[in-house]
Amino acid sequence: MEELRRLIRNVPDFPHKGIQFKDITTLVKDGKAFAKVIDLFDQRYRDKRVDIIVGVESRGFIFGGALAYKWGVGFVPVRKPGKLPAEKIREEYELEYGTDALEIHTDAIQPGQRVLIIDDLLATGGTLAATARLVERLGGTVVGIAFLIELAFLNGREKIKQYDCYSIVQYHAEEEK
Amino acid sequence: MEELRRLIRNVPDFPHKGIQFKDITTLVKDGKAFAKVIDLFDQRYRDKRVDIIVGVESRGFIFGGALAYKWGVGFVPVRKPGKLPAEKIREEYELEYGTDALEIHTDAIQPGQRVLIIDDLLATGGTLAATARLVERLGGTVVGIAFLIELAFLNGREKIKQYDCYSIVQYHAEEEK
Repeated sequence: MEELRRLIRNVPDFPHKGIQFKDITTLVKDGKAFAKVIDLFDQRYRDKRVDIIVGVESRGFIFGGALAYKWGVGFVPVRKPGKLPAEKIREEYELEYGTDALEIHTDAIQPGQRVLIIDDLLATGGTLAATARLVERLGGTVVGIAFLIELAFLNGREKIKQYDCYSIVQYHAEEEK
Repeated sequence: MEELRRLIRNVPDFPHKGIQFKDITTLVKDGKAFAKVIDLFDQRYRDKRVDIIVGVESRGFIFGGALAYKWGVGFVPVRKPGKLPAEKIREEYELEYGTDALEIHTDAIQPGQRVLIIDDLLATGGTLAATARLVERLGGTVVGIAFLIELAFLNGREKIKQYDCYSIVQYHAEEEK
């Protein structure tokens, strides 16, 4: 995983002063590295009989679309409010100041379908916990939550600890590059 | 292509009154249909020696990520202003009222790289023409522009006619479902 970690660019003070932003574009533009990420997700969850991959807007779409294609299963986007055009449900989650929300189409998942949730990064866990609630409200079973990067010092795993979670690259201190 | 067309949901009056929105989520959640789209893009461009796939935020990420994985090449996102964290360039394009813009990281493409641009839909062609200009300003060669849906009555092809374009499902009248 060290080679993958080296391809993640650290951008200081983005989007706010003091934040060490983890930029995945430098990894994803490397075809071998991008394929390696998808293959690791595949190895970890291929035996889980996944019916649907749910990707979180918008970097989760890149990885989720690739894995859905590899497995020949459907892909479902979870999006910010106002983006999905048809009947949908919403879950709010906490930000540092205020709240934000995510939405999913009500016909996106059939009761009993086995769902793998994919995103690029786990921070405080708010978006991924909200995504899992959306899936479960539609009757789906969350068989796992996978993300390339885990900001372990934010303890986001605590919010999704009832699920089978997997990350490829972990950062254990806020200032880690 | 009729089976793919049938899976695209028409949503009247979204996001504005009078617009017949083409919703691809009903197609993409069908694993076979999603794979079919990627395989058609593959067949059309596999001999073009593509080095990099550029996907346009955010539905272009779903298809672009899958095709990049299939080919083992890198994926580069083109995004709305303020989303990309590192050094970038910008191209504006016209909207019905006013302008919007797209950005790409300056290190996303190396001079001489062969680039396939992917999005879900061609409307007036503004975003795809701007994306092509971004790629060319970085020295990339646009070998093609591919999109699942073409709103042919908007004549968007006119803005990108110098490129090798490809769409899978076409709508020829504004009110077509």
